[in-house]
Amino acid sequence: MVSSEMVKPLLASNGGDSASRGPLSCGDTIGILGSGDFSRSLATRLLSSGFKVVVGSRNPKRSAGLFPADAEVTGQTEAARRADLIFVAIFRDHYSTLKGLAEVLARKILVDVSNNTEINVSRESNAEYLATIFPQCTVVKAFNVVSAWALQSGPADGNKQVLICSDSVDARNRVASLARSMGFIPMDMGALCSAREVENVPLHLLPLWKVPCGGAGLLFLFFYLYNFVRVVLHPYLTEGKNQFYKMPVELMNITLPCVAYVLLSLVYLPGVLAAAYQLRNGTKYRRFPDWLDRWMIHRKQIGLVSFFCAALHALYSLCLPMRRSARYQLLNDAFKQVKQNVTSSWVEEEVWRMEIYVSLGIIALGILSLLAVSSLPSVGNALNWREFNFIQSQLGLSALVISTLHTLTFGWRRAFDPNRYKFYLPPTFTLTLVLPIIIILTRCALLLPCLRTKLTRIRRGWEKKTYGKFSDLSDTSTECSSNV
Amino acid sequence: MVSSEMVKPLLASNGGDSASRGPLSCGDTIGILGSGDFSRSLATRLLSSGFKVVVGSRNPKRSAGLFPADAEVTGQTEAARRADLIFVAIFRDHYSTLKGLAEVLARKILVDVSNNTEINVSRESNAEYLATIFPQCTVVKAFNVVSAWALQSGPADGNKQVLICSDSVDARNRVASLARSMGFIPMDMGALCSAREVENVPLHLLPLWKVPCGGAGLLFLFFYLYNFVRVVLHPYLTEGKNQFYKMPVELMNITLPCVAYVLLSLVYLPGVLAAAYQLRNGTKYRRFPDWLDRWMIHRKQIGLVSFFCAALHALYSLCLPMRRSARYQLLNDAFKQVKQNVTSSWVEEEVWRMEIYVSLGIIALGILSLLAVSSLPSVGNALNWREFNFIQSQLGLSALVISTLHTLTFGWRRAFDPNRYKFYLPPTFTLTLVLPIIIILTRCALLLPCLRTKLTRIRRGWEKKTYGKFSDLSDTSTECSSNV
Amino acid sequence: MVSSEMVKPLLASNGGDSASRGPLSCGDTIGILGSGDFSRSLATRLLSSGFKVVVGSRNPKRSAGLFPADAEVTGQTEAARRADLIFVAIFRDHYSTLKGLAEVLARKILVDVSNNTEINVSRESNAEYLATIFPQCTVVKAFNVVSAWALQSGPADGNKQVLICSDSVDARNRVASLARSMGFIPMDMGALCSAREVENVPLHLLPLWKVPCGGAGLLFLFFYLYNFVRVVLHPYLTEGKNQFYKMPVELMNITLPCVAYVLLSLVYLPGVLAAAYQLRNGTKYRRFPDWLDRWMIHRKQIGLVSFFCAALHALYSLCLPMRRSARYQLLNDAFKQVKQNVTSSWVEEEVWRMEIYVSLGIIALGILSLLAVSSLPSVGNALNWREFNFIQSQLGLSALVISTLHTLTFGWRRAFDPNRYKFYLPPTFTLTLVLPIIIILTRCALLLPCLRTKLTRIRRGWEKKTYGKFSDLSDTSTECSSNV
Repeated sequence: MVSSEMVKPLLASNGGDSASRGPLSCGDTIGILGSGDFSRSLATRLLSSGFKVVVGSRNPKRSAGLFPADAEVTGQTEAARRADLIFVAIFRDHYSTLKGLAEVLARKILVDVSNNTEINVSRESNAEYLATIFPQCTVVKAFNVVSAWALQSGPADGNKQVLICSDSVDARNRVASLARSMGFIPMDMGALCSAREVENVPLHLLPLWKVPCGGAGLLFLFFYLYNFVRVVLHPYLTEGKNQFYKMPVELMNITLPCVAYVLLSLVYLPGVLAAAYQLRNGTKYRRFPDWLDRWMIHRKQIGLVSFFCAALHALYSLCLPMRRSARYQLLNDAFKQVKQNVTSSWVEEEVWRMEIYVSLGIIALGILSLLAVSSLPSVGNALNWREFNFIQSQLGLSALVISTLHTLTFGWRRAFDPNRYKFYLPPTFTLTLVLPIIIILTRCALLLPCLRTKLTRIRRGWEKKTYGKFSDLSDTSTECSSNV
Repeated sequence: MVSSEMVKPLLASNGGDSASRGPLSCGDTIGILGSGDFSRSLATRLLSSGFKVVVGSRNPKRSAGLFPADAEVTGQTEAARRADLIFVAIFRDHYSTLKGLAEVLARKILVDVSNNTEINVSRESNAEYLATIFPQCTVVKAFNVVSAWALQSGPADGNKQVLICSDSVDARNRVASLARSMGFIPMDMGALCSAREVENVPLHLLPLWKVPCGGAGLLFLFFYLYNFVRVVLHPYLTEGKNQFYKMPVELMNITLPCVAYVLLSLVYLPGVLAAAYQLRNGTKYRRFPDWLDRWMIHRKQIGLVSFFCAALHALYSLCLPMRRSARYQLLNDAFKQVKQNVTSSWVEEEVWRMEIYVSLGIIALGILSLLAVSSLPSVGNALNWREFNFIQSQLGLSALVISTLHTLTFGWRRAFDPNRYKFYLPPTFTLTLVLPIIIILTRCALLLPCLRTKLTRIRRGWEKKTYGKFSDLSDTSTECSSNV
Repeated sequence: MVSSEMVKPLLASNGGDSASRGPLSCGDTIGILGSGDFSRSLATRLLSSGFKVVVGSRNPKRSAGLFPADAEVTGQTEAARRADLIFVAIFRDHYSTLKGLAEVLARKILVDVSNNTEINVSRESNAEYLATIFPQCTVVKAFNVVSAWALQSGPADGNKQVLICSDSVDARNRVASLARSMGFIPMDMGALCSAREVENVPLHLLPLWKVPCGGAGLLFLFFYLYNFVRVVLHPYLTEGKNQFYKMPVELMNITLPCVAYVLLSLVYLPGVLAAAYQLRNGTKYRRFPDWLDRWMIHRKQIGLVSFFCAALHALYSLCLPMRRSARYQLLNDAFKQVKQNVTSSWVEEEVWRMEIYVSLGIIALGILSLLAVSSLPSVGNALNWREFNFIQSQLGLSALVISTLHTLTFGWRRAFDPNRYKFYLPPTFTLTLVLPIIIILTRCALLLPCLRTKLTRIRRGWEKKTYGKFSDLSDTSTECSSNV
């Protein structure tokens, strides 16, 4: 970067509009209006990035003690006069109190960092409102997605993206280069009319998790009720047996794996649907239906919720022998065995069934935990595409297959035992098997040479119709959006 | 960046002091004195960032084989002559051996990358000592916080911050831009007198973890002894029963949840205290007492230690039925039941108590594990402030509430059973309930409209006293420091 | 950065070769040939980084709908004409179809972003092939290691490194600065002949994991068979007992800890060997043998596989009492106890043995889980070298010691019980103890003052021979490569 002394004179003669001045350099003075926590953290970070900082406060004396020693704390007018780029770190309600500074601020860049407490609380965004108050200033919306905490804790921590929008391209670039110097990564969001969108970003609450969590909740409710009817209500109504004590642990333990298993199959269903869609259309250049696109975007979250349910299921299972009820039943069974004088109660088939499904369950959980770890941003970032695909697609499918075997050995021959059909309701595990088995069969079908070759060609750009003698590159991405 | 050929001549005429020359560009030559591991890693990284590298070694022939082929390995004088910016990658003890290079090095930038093995081992920092040896050079302290490993493994890995200090602002900026080109994020630490502080940074040993781990250790000791007296010593002294075998597993299993539970409440106590403090003072512009500030900074670590103890408690619990002792007791109980001819030993109340507290315990652990995952830097960075607050504050508090229910159902009516007061000591769980219940009640009180409105206004800058007709922005940060 | 308008005229007169023009600035126009997924993601990211984008498509009308509104989609010739730097996002097979653009593209920079589907599929790299088609262009290989997904999801996510190679240093620097503006970290890979290597990078499949996973697999096979012979085959052949039901769970449960324990000792063995090697040679300037170097690089992966096996072992152990077989055995034992009229089957020694080894096992797993968490990139990055060393070396060794105690208490006196030598095979645990005990003893020996002093001096650069009156800095790195 060329030192500012040389460049500025050249540019100042260029019209005098501050927005078109040269880039910011270390050593330049940055102004901040306001003395709250955000202002303090901003000052600290600017100083440690090598800038000079002037803070404009209503009450400089009182505020000075709150700021780092290197920051100059002065009155608002003085601070506005001293810098060309000024952060406005004041609540929207108090923007109007700055009107007196209009003349001093004219032709300078004002950076609006404010956030709202609710989405779309006002008609116009805070930044646009600021722009109407100071028509002679260039207003830039930026840094609102960064928390005071992230500013203060330095570049090693905190969210690194800074969304920037402004009607002036030059002002945008200046603030972008400032953000870069501070260790953030600027994202250009276009004109100031995007400010509302930018202001809503920090108010989003885990948007990608809502549908997966909601869906998991509904599935949980359905399976819990279904199991309640079969396991608790049926023996109570038909035999008068009180098994309500099973509600807190045993019902949870047979409901959670159903949810986990169905969710896991929902992770791999869209890939199968996408392949079918591409095969039918004979091209990859037709957009997937919106619902399919949205589904594919949520796969990671669905998979993680599935893993969470599977892990809870494991915990519940492991708790089973610890419970008083298990102890009492065992003692009573021992008593019965002695009274009936049965030397051995060993049932070889039951033993094998359980040994196998327990072992398969552990292996499936082990694989799912690898998938979950590779979903952590810092782990996923260290993988190249092929590795990511191997883990998410190959390992994930094998987790699905092993879970299916786990379910099948758990079920054993019960699906064909009429006594298991309480109130004509089939055993729960039979319900959950439908989707995964469809997916596994379709996946096997896609391994057939005829289909596989066609799909590969389609994904490399080949098209069924006449147009397209040659095709564009889409290398990793097709796979990424359809295989994983 | 303007190519260096154009800029340098302009600047060279500017006085000739290298520290004020233009910024470094790809293709510039960087010197390194020393041929150890750090030197090798530094050379590798500089080369891959597009710079030319000259290494000055005492024994160029032997050293050449250790360096990448693109690095030029030559004598020390030659290397010093060829570059304007020279890394000194030599132990402090050997700085004096470089004295012969003083003339060649004059007016160049020396970057001191050395570390000490102990905190404050010498009177002056290594960098300041280097500056006294070469008064004609500009010494910059930098890159010491980066390990040879982080240098070598490329920018995707390793600590990314580089702390820089020097008495010359220009030299600081040059090294900062060099660090940036190499994929690091420079942090300006001011004048060279900060070098001591910078040299101590890599010697810190988990400073934020000392108090939480120490506190957890003390809590563990206290509760272990308390439980030992109640569970082992009391039956031994009063009934002569030998229950010392309970020390490795059962005592651990009842001690760990106490530690976890008290620590979890210590995470949420400072938030309550901060709110009370702000309400009493009627302003947020008064600093919290130092101990409260320090406590708030440690909350994440306290929470993670709490989760670790809770997870160990879960493992210990799950191991209970696996043990020989549990097996022998069961067999003996079965024997007793048969001898006493009791058909059923079922106790409905005991069954319900345990089913409920086991289920609540699993749910609490599940929520705590979500909190722990969101504490991972890469996960936390991907959250905006509202999401972080939701997870840490809402989910965290619900974990505290569910843990409290877990403890209460575990305790059931034992708090009121005189037989449980061994040596007049109340059951352990009653001790742990004090803090969490205070916190939960205070939290509920803060939901009352009168208090909530006042607190919200205070956090938006309102003040009780006369000064302050309007107030500064503190958006996310107030919440961040007081709610979470 | 100086705004492009000023710099370009200066440079254009410099020869006109686009590769030597000034750096790219926000607002510059970037061309993209191709309209696949990668092209779309690239356009999105370039736009959000503040550049203008012109996409050249065979069928602009159809493609336009697939691109963001701000991207201009036009014909290939037009796009090639409008930009100086053009991404070629087309499959290698179709490069030849671009021949018609040769004249328009002359003297421009072509960025080849293509990947292959197999390693070394063609004789020359895609980028070199492109260079032969367009001899008048400057071809740069870059961005192929970045997936379309990483491009689209913004700088907070995805792999951040971009490997760049080209025969023109200027073109390399221009693409490097472009990558930096987009939030990536450029890595200079030298001349275009490195393109093959760069193109192979995204095809690697977890290279560091192959040996550790393969080794773990072999160890698993060996120990599983060994245990099968001892636990299942021996009672079947000698006593006719059918214990094949133990294969899915019990054999897994005694095999996994053997694998985990041996792998854990393999993590700490190379450190001991390296110390011995340095002591014998009396210098640290002699390279370790290649196998030792490679072993040391794989330690993190070996440790994580070890932790995975240990965690599975814990799960299997916890499942033991849940199984039908455990239940049946317990019932039959109760029956037997009643028939034999044994009031108490309590064996104090067995109780103590199991309580202790269970507790030690849990503690060892807890420590290993801390090591595993600190291996996550984002956690490890936040640690300084001393902290990393403390966790990996001190905590890791204590995990090894506690695992050894766990194994010893598990084994108890069985190593000396002739009945335990089935087919003359010693109990499995005795096999696994060999390596760890050697390591622990050697480690203790290295704590002896005479050896420790010598080793410390060697690691600070001291040498046995005559040469080397003073020595170079290698601070953190030596320790890093030999202690950890």
